[in-house]
Amino acid sequence: MTTFTPTERTRVKRLPDRGKYDLETVFSILDEGFVCHVGFVVDGQPYVIPTGYARAGDKLYIHGSAASRMLRTLAGGVQVCVTVTLVDGIVVARSAFHSSMNYRSVVILGRATLITDPEEKAKAFEAITEHIIPGRWAEVRRPTEPEMKQTAVLVLPLEEVSAKIRTGGPKDDEEDYALPIWAGVLPLPVVPGAPIPDSRLPATVEIPGYISHYKRPRNGHRPL
Amino acid sequence: MTTFTPTERTRVKRLPDRGKYDLETVFSILDEGFVCHVGFVVDGQPYVIPTGYARAGDKLYIHGSAASRMLRTLAGGVQVCVTVTLVDGIVVARSAFHSSMNYRSVVILGRATLITDPEEKAKAFEAITEHIIPGRWAEVRRPTEPEMKQTAVLVLPLEEVSAKIRTGGPKDDEEDYALPIWAGVLPLPVVPGAPIPDSRLPATVEIPGYISHYKRPRNGHRPL
Repeated sequence: MTTFTPTERTRVKRLPDRGKYDLETVFSILDEGFVCHVGFVVDGQPYVIPTGYARAGDKLYIHGSAASRMLRTLAGGVQVCVTVTLVDGIVVARSAFHSSMNYRSVVILGRATLITDPEEKAKAFEAITEHIIPGRWAEVRRPTEPEMKQTAVLVLPLEEVSAKIRTGGPKDDEEDYALPIWAGVLPLPVVPGAPIPDSRLPATVEIPGYISHYKRPRNGHRPL
Repeated sequence: MTTFTPTERTRVKRLPDRGKYDLETVFSILDEGFVCHVGFVVDGQPYVIPTGYARAGDKLYIHGSAASRMLRTLAGGVQVCVTVTLVDGIVVARSAFHSSMNYRSVVILGRATLITDPEEKAKAFEAITEHIIPGRWAEVRRPTEPEMKQTAVLVLPLEEVSAKIRTGGPKDDEEDYALPIWAGVLPLPVVPGAPIPDSRLPATVEIPGYISHYKRPRNGHRPL
């Protein structure tokens, strides 16, 4: 499989040119981001909760600290929507109407289930740790059994998925190009700052390269 | 009113110390962010869509290009959850279990309604433009009547609202502090890049200060 099949629910209808369904695009967005917004419904009320995640092959692991509320309603699978959004910049058009944002987003629909198998759960912890800080798993103090039990991890199959992307400069109405109004793009990248060592860190512990050279993978992804 | 009253639905139950309900905190997060995630339900399926927004007093205006799907289900008010999340950094703890993120988020529950009054709609356009690029409204080519009709704006009262915040360094288990593992915080600020002028921009049009000195208001907000 190299592309997702859009469904009636995932096909991008407004501005269909922005819709993308190929794995390459979808996975590169999921692998660059590390915070998702999980939507679920309780008593007809939608809730949207930010949390960490990782992709492993064609599955998404979602850190369960998201919401005990979600866990309470979990009984073998609850309908969720998981959205990952990367904001790349502000599109400054001459008109307010055509002003926009450059962004890349992925929307995943499906049923998330709680991981109960301890082996898969351990794999999910590793995936999430490595997704957020590649290289960390080899050094970090790993979860104990009681810690594993305290944290829930959900798994969501990547089946009903679409991406939406906007790139490039403003697209103004032809007559507006003559106006003496500045237009262009203001990039808004996430730029890692200088790492702040913990106040109790011994001076003998050096900063690892995966922290001092931290960056998100841009337009790339781990193996399909 | 200086604080929101938490309800059964908005009170932060997991890690209650992170829950904040004062207007100062909530408004500063809403005023610093400019992309929200809107959650709504169609046929039992939640959808989570990223879109632009602005706060004006005790109302949130949501840019309606979000989802025609949402508009189709709008009949005088649909239950939504609007979440704004600012990711401030990665908390690198000695243990995987205590590793975390520094973030500030706001969750708003309520019923969004379509703005039909042209005057309020114009006000909402101005608020959204000014929220994303303060200073822009005075220069931009304003929306025409047909443009206004093509764009929907939703309004959501700020009534059932909570914020959740994590700041500071890692909190490791006492026995883990002796481990020779680097720990601290990796800040992940959004840093505006050099503005990219539109390829058709005449050389005579200078870059305005609100673009060249663009920054989000940090820990501040517009009048309550």
